[in-house]
Amino acid sequence: MSQARRQIKLGAFLMETGHHVAAWRHAKTHLTGGLDFAHYAQLAQIAERAKFDAVFFADSVGIRDTNLASLSRTARADHFEPLTLLAALSVATTHIGLIATVSTTFNVARKFASLDHLSGGRSGWNLVTSSSETEALNFGFEQHPAHAVRYERAREFLDVVTGLWDSWEDDAFVRDRESGIYFDPGKLHVLNHRGPHFKVRGPLNVARSPQGWPVVVQAGASDAGRELAAQTAEVIFVAHQTLDEAKAFYRDVKGRLGRYGRRPEDLKIMPGILPVIGKTHDEARAKFNALQDLIHPDVGLALLSKMTGGVDLSAYPVEGPLPDLPETNGGKSRQQLLFDLARRRENLSIRDLYLRIAGARGHQQIVGTPESIADQLQQWFEEEGADGFNIMSPWLPGGLTEFAELVVPELQRRGLFRTEYEGKTLRKNLGLPRPENRHAQVARQRLAG
Amino acid sequence: MSQARRQIKLGAFLMETGHHVAAWRHAKTHLTGGLDFAHYAQLAQIAERAKFDAVFFADSVGIRDTNLASLSRTARADHFEPLTLLAALSVATTHIGLIATVSTTFNVARKFASLDHLSGGRSGWNLVTSSSETEALNFGFEQHPAHAVRYERAREFLDVVTGLWDSWEDDAFVRDRESGIYFDPGKLHVLNHRGPHFKVRGPLNVARSPQGWPVVVQAGASDAGRELAAQTAEVIFVAHQTLDEAKAFYRDVKGRLGRYGRRPEDLKIMPGILPVIGKTHDEARAKFNALQDLIHPDVGLALLSKMTGGVDLSAYPVEGPLPDLPETNGGKSRQQLLFDLARRRENLSIRDLYLRIAGARGHQQIVGTPESIADQLQQWFEEEGADGFNIMSPWLPGGLTEFAELVVPELQRRGLFRTEYEGKTLRKNLGLPRPENRHAQVARQRLAG
Repeated sequence: MSQARRQIKLGAFLMETGHHVAAWRHAKTHLTGGLDFAHYAQLAQIAERAKFDAVFFADSVGIRDTNLASLSRTARADHFEPLTLLAALSVATTHIGLIATVSTTFNVARKFASLDHLSGGRSGWNLVTSSSETEALNFGFEQHPAHAVRYERAREFLDVVTGLWDSWEDDAFVRDRESGIYFDPGKLHVLNHRGPHFKVRGPLNVARSPQGWPVVVQAGASDAGRELAAQTAEVIFVAHQTLDEAKAFYRDVKGRLGRYGRRPEDLKIMPGILPVIGKTHDEARAKFNALQDLIHPDVGLALLSKMTGGVDLSAYPVEGPLPDLPETNGGKSRQQLLFDLARRRENLSIRDLYLRIAGARGHQQIVGTPESIADQLQQWFEEEGADGFNIMSPWLPGGLTEFAELVVPELQRRGLFRTEYEGKTLRKNLGLPRPENRHAQVARQRLAG
Repeated sequence: MSQARRQIKLGAFLMETGHHVAAWRHAKTHLTGGLDFAHYAQLAQIAERAKFDAVFFADSVGIRDTNLASLSRTARADHFEPLTLLAALSVATTHIGLIATVSTTFNVARKFASLDHLSGGRSGWNLVTSSSETEALNFGFEQHPAHAVRYERAREFLDVVTGLWDSWEDDAFVRDRESGIYFDPGKLHVLNHRGPHFKVRGPLNVARSPQGWPVVVQAGASDAGRELAAQTAEVIFVAHQTLDEAKAFYRDVKGRLGRYGRRPEDLKIMPGILPVIGKTHDEARAKFNALQDLIHPDVGLALLSKMTGGVDLSAYPVEGPLPDLPETNGGKSRQQLLFDLARRRENLSIRDLYLRIAGARGHQQIVGTPESIADQLQQWFEEEGADGFNIMSPWLPGGLTEFAELVVPELQRRGLFRTEYEGKTLRKNLGLPRPENRHAQVARQRLAG
């Protein structure tokens, strides 16, 4: 039969050290290939040079096997989560297709562990409880749980995630070709979590990651949010309008750390700032005004309405004051911030208010020269309002380039910011300790005691 | 106060075209930056050159806003899913930290749409129903639903995912700086799915992706799996031991397409093969035997037990025959394949059986020279047992290199495989049509009718 134009399609189904069940014992395989991005990049590039249609990754959302005698002799227990792997491969290739298996549910712990391996220890997870109804509706819920329940649930969720990150001790994977033992079964720990909100067996099918745990970031500023952060966060991303607010928050949260056996330096507080940078103050001001003029009233009102917890403000005149508003189930700290703002500054109209928050959504806007911006960051830093800042450039890429080229050198001249990275991991650069695996810790304490 | 060693930490909180709510209307922003990886790579590199600690991405699992008048004037409705974005950025950077917001649940539709944008239209989703109990236990279930229910649920899940992929028409995002209209509200479609298994409102917060839908791949070979594939799959990944089996499967599945208005070429059937390649047949055989000798009996028995649906075979002598086994709730097609194998080949012992399937887990092992392997692929292809193959190299990277350097050129010499990629998307290379957006289709049909 004639097949003149029809050609064969080829997929490269890739799997750690190979498909043969004993491939990892073959002398020429890359023993730690399962979690080495360079290995997969090489494979995808081999396939792409040969004009394959696609690379293809299988997956399962847990270790498939409960038979430890067999499992510990195979190289299937630690590998990248395929979606993050494919995303990285999209950068290392240009033509070849990228296919991954995905079952119906995913695991936050697994994605971040995978990303931590991919990036060599540079990942961080900003844990949020989600406060919008539209998000809830995408997951079969009619509405969000109440504020307090969300925090309870978040605490338990974090326990599950960190528990899964400790599934494997750091030295669990011995990969001994001679004996055929791939991992030490005694260093695998099944979580078996059963709490009010989650039932998760574990273990994770990714080895403990370079940072032990990806850095845990939080953003809640309510009392419940502060307490959760004091107990569990390593970075807090927060919004402040004034130095006094920032100092009070800093003092309060750092003061809560002791009751969880933590030191002040174990948690970095990083407020967001929105810098508008000019060579002169007038130039900076003109740049800012030009941006503000582009805000359509529909956009400003909607933003304000969201910050008040969903109250429709379209019935009130934009030139008039903000009306008294009921408390809602939305994010507490954002509402408070807005009310403080309205009270503090006399005679602010609805339009004034939305213009004030439109750019930075409650974070501080700093309009000035590189020197005056550096002055302000230095003051907040030295007077213990912040350990650092999350830079929210008003527009990209220009705003970030200006900050990098104008403000950073000024901070460096003052000895306030690094001139070289301290290390290769995010923890090392932030000055955060690497968490010990809870099971290794227990074993160590048992030996010592 | 002295701060000799303490230095400021800096995060670059990045957001599409910038944090100012009207930034996208600024003349120097990158209008389509929200879904352009090069834009984010540039930003992360600016921040890394300036020694920032981390880039930081906010996220929400849905569009936050229900106010269309405002929403359609802001650049917040289409952006990368942050985990896939960070994975890609891990390749484009070396020191800077990578922090993303993640709420407690994720969306398959969103990840693949994001990956499709990241890769310029090269993503594919292999939909599996998951058949292992250990996976179920990681998500709060005591056991997996029955085989038939899994397929019903998969069908509905696919409806939701493809529905979400059609949230936006291809030309929904007009991004007109002058009028301030970012997207056309009439081209946004809310899914509002309410089925027996899922309730999902939508819409997706990623624009329709380069391929319209990422390529849908399936792997089930049971009757339910075949029917689902005939209705919805674009690639089938399947395991066959003989050409006769492959031809029967090909004929059966391609024959089912007509009842769903599909053409035979709309679905590519790609069996897996495990090639062991030698310059001579003897060399290939020796390579294969060397690998087989590395299989520990614990590993072989566990593999066989898994394929029989979890039956413990350790009580039976490995040199004896496979006992009669009960039907289980596991993957039907794998069990059938094993029984066929045991019946077809006289006097196969348990050890013979596990050695036979250990390498390729039911897929065909081909041990031979580049020419003999090409002969076999050509025969399967020309006699309509396959449209192509998923190459499962026994060990990596060597096995893939050998296939790329020895077998691919042989296929090319015969005119059976491309010498250059046909295009930049996976669909183009596989020869699959780009699905029209269901809402645009309805509108077009209404105009035509």
